[in-house]
Amino acid sequence: MVAVEVVETSSLGDRSYLVTDGAVAAVVDPQRDVDRVLALAGHHDVSITHVLETHIHNDYISGGVELCRLTGAQYGVAAADVVSFARRPLAEGDVVAVSPGLRLRVLATPGHTFHHLSYVLEDPDGAVGVFTGGSLLFGSTGRTDLLGQQHSEELARHQHASVRKLADVLPDGAAIWPTHGFGSYCSTGGVSGSSATVGQQKKVNAAFRLGEDEFVEHTLFALDAFPAYYAQMGPRNLAGPEPVDLRGPARVRPAELARRLRVGDWVVDLRSRQAFSQAHLAGTISLGLDGPLATWLGWLIEWGSPLTLIGEAPEQVAAAQRELARIGVDRPTAAVGRPQELAIDVNLVRRLPSATFGDLAEVGPGTVVLDVRMRSEWRACHLKNAVHIPLFELRYRTHELPDGVVWVHCSAGYRAAAAASLLAREGREVVFVDEEFAAAHRAGLPLVSDR
Amino acid sequence: MVAVEVVETSSLGDRSYLVTDGAVAAVVDPQRDVDRVLALAGHHDVSITHVLETHIHNDYISGGVELCRLTGAQYGVAAADVVSFARRPLAEGDVVAVSPGLRLRVLATPGHTFHHLSYVLEDPDGAVGVFTGGSLLFGSTGRTDLLGQQHSEELARHQHASVRKLADVLPDGAAIWPTHGFGSYCSTGGVSGSSATVGQQKKVNAAFRLGEDEFVEHTLFALDAFPAYYAQMGPRNLAGPEPVDLRGPARVRPAELARRLRVGDWVVDLRSRQAFSQAHLAGTISLGLDGPLATWLGWLIEWGSPLTLIGEAPEQVAAAQRELARIGVDRPTAAVGRPQELAIDVNLVRRLPSATFGDLAEVGPGTVVLDVRMRSEWRACHLKNAVHIPLFELRYRTHELPDGVVWVHCSAGYRAAAAASLLAREGREVVFVDEEFAAAHRAGLPLVSDR
Repeated sequence: MVAVEVVETSSLGDRSYLVTDGAVAAVVDPQRDVDRVLALAGHHDVSITHVLETHIHNDYISGGVELCRLTGAQYGVAAADVVSFARRPLAEGDVVAVSPGLRLRVLATPGHTFHHLSYVLEDPDGAVGVFTGGSLLFGSTGRTDLLGQQHSEELARHQHASVRKLADVLPDGAAIWPTHGFGSYCSTGGVSGSSATVGQQKKVNAAFRLGEDEFVEHTLFALDAFPAYYAQMGPRNLAGPEPVDLRGPARVRPAELARRLRVGDWVVDLRSRQAFSQAHLAGTISLGLDGPLATWLGWLIEWGSPLTLIGEAPEQVAAAQRELARIGVDRPTAAVGRPQELAIDVNLVRRLPSATFGDLAEVGPGTVVLDVRMRSEWRACHLKNAVHIPLFELRYRTHELPDGVVWVHCSAGYRAAAAASLLAREGREVVFVDEEFAAAHRAGLPLVSDR
Repeated sequence: MVAVEVVETSSLGDRSYLVTDGAVAAVVDPQRDVDRVLALAGHHDVSITHVLETHIHNDYISGGVELCRLTGAQYGVAAADVVSFARRPLAEGDVVAVSPGLRLRVLATPGHTFHHLSYVLEDPDGAVGVFTGGSLLFGSTGRTDLLGQQHSEELARHQHASVRKLADVLPDGAAIWPTHGFGSYCSTGGVSGSSATVGQQKKVNAAFRLGEDEFVEHTLFALDAFPAYYAQMGPRNLAGPEPVDLRGPARVRPAELARRLRVGDWVVDLRSRQAFSQAHLAGTISLGLDGPLATWLGWLIEWGSPLTLIGEAPEQVAAAQRELARIGVDRPTAAVGRPQELAIDVNLVRRLPSATFGDLAEVGPGTVVLDVRMRSEWRACHLKNAVHIPLFELRYRTHELPDGVVWVHCSAGYRAAAAASLLAREGREVVFVDEEFAAAHRAGLPLVSDR
């Protein structure tokens, strides 16, 4: 009778949930674009009466306040979190009775944050599953350093205890419904699969396989940098996010677009990196909608600075706007068209050369190779003699690059294109490698590891 | 393939529409609580890409801005209306291409307002129906005096021409989808039925049966007072309404409730008038959720003054809050419970005697009888020797009532209970007649007509 529906936000690596008895529903950890949740409720012909947060989110703007404004649903948030909006304060042992047949029991599961809650779904026969937010994930656990490096060890110890508490309370057959863990930077490494039970996780999850000290060491080792904009999310979620605004952005004409590029404004090309490679406006940045646009744009842009999006169709701009609204980058302006249509001067249309690792193998020694992957990726395996500057640091470290043509690579091409466009914008001559990193080995390039 | 779905707002006598080709949808004249529209779109698994207004509404706060904020839909509003929000300006002859198979052709149909538009739904075979807003209604037309008495005749002439224009453009089989006309005060009298075609209306609608001058006379004669709060709606809809907020109201404790009643605040009892009759808190006003609560509360209350709602369950308060939000009466406070639970003193619990017309017939001559119906109802037929004060004027005219017990009636009992509770609040001794007015004749009471 009780059903759990998933709302995927794969671009952020997150899931939200709608849990329903067929008449009413509770929503767990909604993203900011709540029309998706309301449509899902409509699809199942149920009314949303409760909205619950597992924690104050660090990777997205919550849609909780908005959803409650729109529906009148009751808003459950950890009592210990000091928020600026009305909510039902929840703590260990509380029961949210959504309906006689649908109850959610509150468990305190600190670790991802200090006040993190999990919600055990109980039907008349007992516990059937648990919404674990950033606690127990598929094959992993939520990272413990988002509230500051100084808390990461303490929170890792909490995380270890919380995960085991979940296993003590729940039967092995209970389903796990995490919010993070599908590419989210809120997860530590090792996430796998798209569903799991408590019993299955006991066998594979490091939180169960390792003792506390080993788990802490394992967890802290696996942590790499997280997107800089995460620092913006917590305060905004505590304050109560502004209503979302997905109305079409103001359109920019070519002359104004040229002016913005001239003064160095951020103008982002949403097309694929392959299209960007063929032709783009000089000074634009390649962050295609076909990759993790929001994560990288949010990470790289100076927060609050003006943003112009370029798409080849209004739908592309609208999709990007929705992605960006989820992390609170609101009200961009936009231009729509092909570069040739948007350029006031044909000389402003440029190419960005792309290549393979095979091409790189042929240019020989002395070539400047830039690796823009994360530190953890670099550590595991990298090209001998490459320069390593993670993409998120590139803006501040271009002076470290030797003179000459820069060949940029990442693990698949997306970040390399972004980095190459940023370097080209600074006047550097660049080639981006648009291939899986595994091809480097096949191309015979020398590889080393820091492990 | 193209389907038109109705969203009823029967409490205001209005309809909104979702028109879809099975993939995308346009919404016409959405009410402010847009979760209903989003759920309907979800039910049909379609995306809302367009929102259209037939006119700047005078009887409710539009949900158009909110729906576009949430979905990114394009917002079509008459070009001639000077609004404070971004929109696609529409005028006669424009075509809104929602999808290749779903087009809406814009017709200027002034009359209900000066800039009123109708939208002709075209499928590949031609016009299948028309969204007429406040133009052609089922058996009637939209009233023409909402922009001020001084415009009512001019607009009535426009209305006559617009309705005939619709009939010229559309085939007889075309469906009519009006916004008003289901109890709305935006309609003139004579509304009937719940669906209609152009051809059928040609036979029964006064706009077709009468020449222009006759129609104008007929229309102006049928106009009675309209809710005072209508004056608030136009400016707010032009400015772009604030986001709706249906989050549960702050709860009031009995001591505070008693204080509010003592100082004469508006405290409205949402239960049925029968429950109110049995027991209520002294000083509370009977406006049951089982009747046209929003219309009468909005009409009677001093706009902007504090409002407390009393319901016997949170769901009753939530439903009232939603009704009131539709007309922009936002953020009430509330108390929940039976009068006996909410009274700090048992003497504050009162009864309000109810009666039938038969009871009234027995009390004999000299009894003060107050008729609180509209002028048009009074004119058609009323009790001999009754005092007539329409409910909406009662607050200013109680001094006209002779001394003694006041028997109050209306057409069914709802307004009589409201009036009686207002009089009791002023210390008058009252009885309200809780019966259909037709029973007066059966009870042998003397009736007269002003016609």
